[in-house]
Amino acid sequence: MTTETHTVHGTAYDRLLDLSRERALLESSSGILGWDSETMMPTGGLEYRSRQLAQLARLTHGLATDERIPELLEEAAAQEGIGPAEQANLGQIRRDHSIATRLPATLVEELAKASSIGQHEWAVARERDDFDHFRPHLEHLLGLSRRKAECLGVPEGGEHWDALADTYEPGMTAAGVEAVFTPLRERLTNLISDLEQSTSKPSNAFNEAECPIESQEAFCRMVAGALGFDFERGRLDRSVHPFCGGSHCNDVRLTTRFQPTEVNDALGSTMHETGHGLYEQGLPFEQVGTPLGESVSLGIHESQSRMWENQVGRSRAFWTWCAPHARSMLGGAIGGLSDDELYQGANIVRPGFIRVEADEATYNLHIMIRFEMERAMISGDLEVGGVPEHWNRLYTDYLGLEVPDDRRGCLQDVHWSMGAIGYFPTYTLGNLYCAQFFEKALEELPGLEAGFERGEFGRLLDWLRSNIHRHGRQYPPGELCERVTGRPLSSEPLMNYLEGKLRPLYGV
Amino acid sequence: MTTETHTVHGTAYDRLLDLSRERALLESSSGILGWDSETMMPTGGLEYRSRQLAQLARLTHGLATDERIPELLEEAAAQEGIGPAEQANLGQIRRDHSIATRLPATLVEELAKASSIGQHEWAVARERDDFDHFRPHLEHLLGLSRRKAECLGVPEGGEHWDALADTYEPGMTAAGVEAVFTPLRERLTNLISDLEQSTSKPSNAFNEAECPIESQEAFCRMVAGALGFDFERGRLDRSVHPFCGGSHCNDVRLTTRFQPTEVNDALGSTMHETGHGLYEQGLPFEQVGTPLGESVSLGIHESQSRMWENQVGRSRAFWTWCAPHARSMLGGAIGGLSDDELYQGANIVRPGFIRVEADEATYNLHIMIRFEMERAMISGDLEVGGVPEHWNRLYTDYLGLEVPDDRRGCLQDVHWSMGAIGYFPTYTLGNLYCAQFFEKALEELPGLEAGFERGEFGRLLDWLRSNIHRHGRQYPPGELCERVTGRPLSSEPLMNYLEGKLRPLYGV
Repeated sequence: MTTETHTVHGTAYDRLLDLSRERALLESSSGILGWDSETMMPTGGLEYRSRQLAQLARLTHGLATDERIPELLEEAAAQEGIGPAEQANLGQIRRDHSIATRLPATLVEELAKASSIGQHEWAVARERDDFDHFRPHLEHLLGLSRRKAECLGVPEGGEHWDALADTYEPGMTAAGVEAVFTPLRERLTNLISDLEQSTSKPSNAFNEAECPIESQEAFCRMVAGALGFDFERGRLDRSVHPFCGGSHCNDVRLTTRFQPTEVNDALGSTMHETGHGLYEQGLPFEQVGTPLGESVSLGIHESQSRMWENQVGRSRAFWTWCAPHARSMLGGAIGGLSDDELYQGANIVRPGFIRVEADEATYNLHIMIRFEMERAMISGDLEVGGVPEHWNRLYTDYLGLEVPDDRRGCLQDVHWSMGAIGYFPTYTLGNLYCAQFFEKALEELPGLEAGFERGEFGRLLDWLRSNIHRHGRQYPPGELCERVTGRPLSSEPLMNYLEGKLRPLYGV
Repeated sequence: MTTETHTVHGTAYDRLLDLSRERALLESSSGILGWDSETMMPTGGLEYRSRQLAQLARLTHGLATDERIPELLEEAAAQEGIGPAEQANLGQIRRDHSIATRLPATLVEELAKASSIGQHEWAVARERDDFDHFRPHLEHLLGLSRRKAECLGVPEGGEHWDALADTYEPGMTAAGVEAVFTPLRERLTNLISDLEQSTSKPSNAFNEAECPIESQEAFCRMVAGALGFDFERGRLDRSVHPFCGGSHCNDVRLTTRFQPTEVNDALGSTMHETGHGLYEQGLPFEQVGTPLGESVSLGIHESQSRMWENQVGRSRAFWTWCAPHARSMLGGAIGGLSDDELYQGANIVRPGFIRVEADEATYNLHIMIRFEMERAMISGDLEVGGVPEHWNRLYTDYLGLEVPDDRRGCLQDVHWSMGAIGYFPTYTLGNLYCAQFFEKALEELPGLEAGFERGEFGRLLDWLRSNIHRHGRQYPPGELCERVTGRPLSSEPLMNYLEGKLRPLYGV
């Protein structure tokens, strides 16, 4: 593509920010095209759309690796008037540039190609329940991922996994994850085993009731608005897989999906994506296109989605407010359910094979299994051929289940077929950050949950805005956690929250 | 923006086409963002969206003016194996490059700014019915347009208007337009005057009947599909102003609008945009991004939209097929209308103040008035201060109307406020091309209209595909017209068509 002459103006810092804004602007256009692909695009548009996105990705990569950046960074560091916020911007720009330039273009292309083929062949293998079909592709992707880790730089005393995971969650290491996962696993498996043995089960009537899709959609839209999602700066549509996408804080696009039953699945998905969306809408528009206008990490993002989905959306206080709305808007069988039945239906815990269908307690065990496996795969301790057997053994160990086939086993998730090694733990880190943040919010905002009973969610949103959203990427995840909660990430708050809610519900 | 290294590969011709495809790919992304702005984007996204589009426009302009193009054109012209199709591609690339490079960047920016301000101030002026508020902006825009014409090159013996009009309709000149408009005006005003004096008026019941928007939408969607619009390669949505947009031939996006009454307005708009969409879907995907994969001109595009809207959608044969569907799908008062009442309702001719509400006969007089005025404005023969008076006098002369205010007069259209001088006549040229093409189709396809009675529209579409769509931009408009119809553009076919239909309908 052609060279564009940039008038050299402003300080080195200003010029770095201009480059950052240019890159983000292109990415934001990709964001809309990506959203469109999943929601609006006719099927015929698929081939050309991939060319459009590849072109924008190429242009974005060109900006991310702009050769002027190192010199400008050096100049800017010595510049006057650089305070902590500006330092943070520079630090993140340095980090992004470093990641972008460490990966050779040939490797990036090989990975993109292997990922595209991998996803296709994974879908075939899953459809046929044939792991061997996927096996060579996974081996190839792991090989490329190892090379990627080496290009990024394996930390001293660390693992290949660490280098990959750091791109999703800055600072995350396998050892660090293990340190929080180990105590979490112990309390969690105890809790789940107690719940399973309970003779007093919550009612599942809510999840079995049928309800017209249109009513579900209106209901979910009402709840998203009540939580604070600004529909003047966002949308809610349908897609096969729910997501939060779009362009920037003033144009945030949520999607959800509906089935004839399982209304709480649609509601939970909507509240989850609304949580992501509230974070995005809370980022400062005046910083758009610079790190201070971006979200911190996948884990912190997930903490926001989980908070509205779980800590809010599965609380008794929420259902005190929500139940009358659910009964009147959803009608039918749901119109006859009590507050308690709705609350209980939102809180069923039941070990299952499928991660994306898991409840908030067992979900984390699914993640631990994946973490353990991908760590062993990338280090070479686990041969790809042994994946199904190892997977199934872990499902027995962690969840007490006999996996019936690989479709409901090691072929269920798309992540590895995309070459995304080091991604899974961010889901559970999100749950952990979330519980720790929420515990702090309860402490700092007396009567918070009583407000939920009256449909008052603005206090929590304001607290998240001022403690988390408005900072953009100023603080790395661990530092943000300590600043907000006064201590490092721990599994205690999540377990206290889960036990405090689920033991009474199951009478154990 | 950064330089991207292009591997020099292939012949000069191949490299020119690569550049063309790169540019078109970027434009196609803008196309989706533009469509999104009008249909999906939350209002909050407006500010950043204009930045996204400006960035893509900047990048596109960079490619359109790429400094390698002149040399590659020279090399390619001498290259072996360049046949007529390749010659056409080269000719169009030369033309586009010449237009893009003749306009200095400063003028392009000034025009973009004046157009943006102009549209805003025009909207204010129209709202307040205050032409004087708009006057200085129009004067400024005319001054810039004159400069634009000079940069583009005023043809010898021609006018400033010609240089501007050529960018919309290659080869169009004021003298050429006048030559077809003069006889057209005479027959048209005679016809309209006869129709007005007729004592036997067609029934207007169809246009007065109320109908739920959802039924109208389902009906319009059904008709678009029946005409041949491929919903696997396109969509139909709602917007304030109907348009046909999107990305390329496999992703074509139509919009329409609905009111409680005036169902035929929604249907006509839908069939009009469907006509544009069928042209787009008929362009060859294998040529996407090169001139041979693009449409010829605004006039030829309009010929396609008008054919489905008017020659098909206002024909008795169409209503023989459509009437039962209309009665059953639209129900209510429409359910009780006869075939004749529906056909008549689609063919009311009545002089009015507003161009976009005009019927297919009087419409062309609105265009002639605008052509006459803008030609005089750009040449300096008409001072901007005299616009309202001149406008009103022409409406009396051409349509026998006393214009009550400037909102319903010279402030009604957005075009001049955007600096689009030379655009209006393409609407009537479209009607003329359309009638001449359709006359030929009737001659070459015996029983064509009898097929419409049975809902068979594929023969017409196939004829348009093979005679017009598949050629892309291989032939300029005038040449295409002669190739398809065997003679140069004339006003005869349009007048024969209008008289042949409307005189019997009005009994004159």
